[in-house]
Amino acid sequence: MNENIIRKMQEIVGEDWVVSDLDKVSSYCEDETEKAVKPKVCRDCVVVKPASAEEISEIMKYANENKYSVMARGGGTSLSGAAVAIMPTIIISMERMNKIIEVDEASLTVECEAGVTLLDIVELFNKHDSLYFPIHPGDEGAQVGGMVVMNAGGVRAVRYGVMRDQVKGLEAVLPTGEIIHAGGKLIKNNAGLDLKNLLIGSEGILGIVTKVTLSIKPKDKHIGSLLVSFENDSDAVNAVTEIFKSGIKPLAIEYMEKTAILRAAEDIGMTWPSNVGNVDLYFIVSERKEDDLYEMYETIVGICEENNAVESFVAESSKEQKTLLEIRSHVYPSMHKMVVDAIDAAVPIKNLAKYMEGIKKIYEKYGVEISTIGHIGDGNMHNSILTEDAEKPECYDEIVDEIFNLVIECEGAITGEHGVGKVRNERLKLQFTEKELNLMKAIKNVFDPNNILNPGTAL
Amino acid sequence: MNENIIRKMQEIVGEDWVVSDLDKVSSYCEDETEKAVKPKVCRDCVVVKPASAEEISEIMKYANENKYSVMARGGGTSLSGAAVAIMPTIIISMERMNKIIEVDEASLTVECEAGVTLLDIVELFNKHDSLYFPIHPGDEGAQVGGMVVMNAGGVRAVRYGVMRDQVKGLEAVLPTGEIIHAGGKLIKNNAGLDLKNLLIGSEGILGIVTKVTLSIKPKDKHIGSLLVSFENDSDAVNAVTEIFKSGIKPLAIEYMEKTAILRAAEDIGMTWPSNVGNVDLYFIVSERKEDDLYEMYETIVGICEENNAVESFVAESSKEQKTLLEIRSHVYPSMHKMVVDAIDAAVPIKNLAKYMEGIKKIYEKYGVEISTIGHIGDGNMHNSILTEDAEKPECYDEIVDEIFNLVIECEGAITGEHGVGKVRNERLKLQFTEKELNLMKAIKNVFDPNNILNPGTAL
Ligand SMILES: Cc1cc2nc3c(=O)[nH]c(=O)nc-3n(C[C@H](O)[C@H](O)[C@H](O)COP(=O)(O)OP(=O)(O)OC[C@H]3O[C@@H](n4cnc5c(N)ncnc54)[C@H](O)[C@@H]3O)c2cc1C
Ligand SMILES: Cc1cc2nc3c(=O)[nH]c(=O)nc-3n(C[C@H](O)[C@H](O)[C@H](O)COP(=O)(O)OP(=O)(O)OC[C@H]3O[C@@H](n4cnc5c(N)ncnc54)[C@H](O)[C@@H]3O)c2cc1C
Repeated sequence: MNENIIRKMQEIVGEDWVVSDLDKVSSYCEDETEKAVKPKVCRDCVVVKPASAEEISEIMKYANENKYSVMARGGGTSLSGAAVAIMPTIIISMERMNKIIEVDEASLTVECEAGVTLLDIVELFNKHDSLYFPIHPGDEGAQVGGMVVMNAGGVRAVRYGVMRDQVKGLEAVLPTGEIIHAGGKLIKNNAGLDLKNLLIGSEGILGIVTKVTLSIKPKDKHIGSLLVSFENDSDAVNAVTEIFKSGIKPLAIEYMEKTAILRAAEDIGMTWPSNVGNVDLYFIVSERKEDDLYEMYETIVGICEENNAVESFVAESSKEQKTLLEIRSHVYPSMHKMVVDAIDAAVPIKNLAKYMEGIKKIYEKYGVEISTIGHIGDGNMHNSILTEDAEKPECYDEIVDEIFNLVIECEGAITGEHGVGKVRNERLKLQFTEKELNLMKAIKNVFDPNNILNPGTAL
Repeated sequence: MNENIIRKMQEIVGEDWVVSDLDKVSSYCEDETEKAVKPKVCRDCVVVKPASAEEISEIMKYANENKYSVMARGGGTSLSGAAVAIMPTIIISMERMNKIIEVDEASLTVECEAGVTLLDIVELFNKHDSLYFPIHPGDEGAQVGGMVVMNAGGVRAVRYGVMRDQVKGLEAVLPTGEIIHAGGKLIKNNAGLDLKNLLIGSEGILGIVTKVTLSIKPKDKHIGSLLVSFENDSDAVNAVTEIFKSGIKPLAIEYMEKTAILRAAEDIGMTWPSNVGNVDLYFIVSERKEDDLYEMYETIVGICEENNAVESFVAESSKEQKTLLEIRSHVYPSMHKMVVDAIDAAVPIKNLAKYMEGIKKIYEKYGVEISTIGHIGDGNMHNSILTEDAEKPECYDEIVDEIFNLVIECEGAITGEHGVGKVRNERLKLQFTEKELNLMKAIKNVFDPNNILNPGTAL
């Protein structure tokens, strides 16, 4: 990396906070994307660790003047190559901006710097008796800033939605160096065009988020998990549809193929409580009152039984619940060494059955294993294409084409939570018209006229 | 209005659907904004009533080529001059695009054309036994399209938020004529920049919304109203803050000065059930179970009593509840002939007390009546400046300046629900920096390079 850049960075943030050793820079240049689809990593980068929005502003002004490429780095947990450096880049690591600023119990908000991790937030509210932050994507190393720009989801979206639904306000530094604010601790706010929502889900190409105000929720006193097994995937899907029609909103509904969940359990030496059937639905429910929790179980089990469920199991003790969650969380890691591409499309609940049927046909046609696990309660399925060595099978392109065509036929989105990043750009034209994409590109150009911020991402 | 334009419009939508008589055009040229602040209306307009997005697309292409000004017209209920024609304009009335397309009980959505009115939606779900649409701004003549672009709120925002929180997807025609789609029946959707949220709250300057998919909610079986009276406004405000801290979420919490609510009751010959105190809080609560409703009443009354409430009254019968709602809805009409300017700022719940205190001081300083009524549960207060004849008092500018400075000091928004329209444009710079406003203007330019769509609005 150019010596002048390194010197300038040292000037702005201080020598201690600039990393330029190839050794140490290396891990900052890529994220958790599967190796078969990850773009080629460029390690000719410098890592800068600013302490404030003002320092970031100075970095941006300098980079913009000189047209140097810049990328923010959160927890590096992205699964879509969003945090992969593909050219010499000034990598702004947000790790030092990790202060929790305020919990406001009247406005029901928590304000924090963007480098606060999901783990920090979880620990903060573990200590709080009545409030918590509901959104929980799978890796607690993710930072709030990364979660905002990736619009992270996770399992509890059924009741609470995704990051977009929690962000009340934010501060960001533009590629041209100005610091802007959008939103606030407000429920109603109708002045001006909505810059806040543009930044949410922008995958780090419009600005660097430096501060975030998130809404928080009252904790329900009673929380439980329910596992229901089916012989047949379509029965499970129908049960989910019926549950929504009944007006019930669990915190989460997860769908798991038995093979995948048993593999995960074995992998960490634990026991999954159900052995029958081919598919499990895993419900997490919470209520203010114990009676309501039992009533919820009953209604869910009732609907599932009408849809040919073969077994159900209530996890009441917190130990049992923890076991279920731990095994569920391990599904992806346990198959990781086989995953070629973890597709995370989302479809409307109404079209879930059609989507699942279509995936099965593709699977049968090509004879390549496609493991389906996912946040079925919000229509967001993870279809992982698996091979023994995680190398692309010969028919990879055809399989992926067919899956995405199916997604569009089902009125779905090509990515429900992992984002476009640097791996799905080519597929965007399936979901959007040329004009729609041109609008997005023109908006990027408004924010970043020299295209210095994470080029090649999201669009 | 230019004869060529009229002829072209007839060509596109058919002769029956073009109105050019000054008499008949007149009522389409303005909205419900108070006369003292309403911009000067231009009636040299033509009204066109298209039946489809395709017809609107043709109108737009023609207008864009010739740089003619165009404005969409919904129910004409705007209170910020958004729907006032201020120059010769092609007014596109959406009244014929009034079909409800689909209620989807699995995805919990209703899809409809933009010209469907709030009344249509209310009537649709009155007939439905388990689902409804929660958002309810005060005038049922408003159309879904108008409600989306104005991001309408209303009383039930405490639990369900505003229009922005309900819009799952939309179709719109751009000023350049292309038809775009954004969002869908999805809970998770992370592809591309968020055009949907840009259009929501855009006040009709980025595109004409033609179709909308809204989320709908399960109906609670038990619904009730609770009225609590206080001597002192600050006690009422403190009670609201404490209620939020307790984790309770009523559907609505309204704040009313006694003078205003008694005037409204008298005006329509009805009786308000409480005569004591100076301020009332009016709670609308709903629960799945009757017991929970009673528990909710108890908790609320308990907290209010701790904050010096002097009386409380539960409206249990649907007749009693209707009476309360009817009188509440009449507050604004009953003072209408005195309203100079109905300011609708919003502040964080945490700063409500400070805001109310500040308003009182301004009121005392200038000796002009400022009536405060509002959606206190979402921090959105309506401070109406009143004079006997609704003419601006001499110190009008100073009063409004002071109110808006106070709003900003309280980290609020200059408009919580009515929008900037054509009456608050000058105040935007209080809430936003020059750079922020320039971003918004550049985005407008991306959508509408010739500035033909409702110029002078929102920015
Ligand atoms: C095991 C595992 C499980 C996962 N489960 C889920 C899940 O359930 N749901 C889900 O949605 N995601 C999931 N993810 C994906 C990932 O955790 C999320 O996308 C997360 O939000 C990324 O945050 P991060 O801080 O790690 O961002 P990074 O990976 O560091 O960066 C991602 C992108 O955000 C940008 N960025 C980061 N910080 C900022 C900032 N402050 N300002 C501007 N841009 C910034 C980067 O430039 C990059 O473009 C999972 C990942 C793993 C590894
Ligand atoms: C008595 C009364 C009570 C009210 N109470 C509330 C309240 O509680 N909460 C609240 O938020 N508001 C309230 N309002 C304000 C008003 O009802 C809302 O702003 C409403 O959303 C406007 O909808 P409309 O269809 O009447 O739009 P119009 O007034 O016709 O138009 C408003 C703006 O939207 C644009 N527009 C209309 N339709 C479209 C379309 N299809 N595509 C693109 N642009 C379009 C117009 O060009 C204009 O800029 C109230 C108004 C009245 C008169």
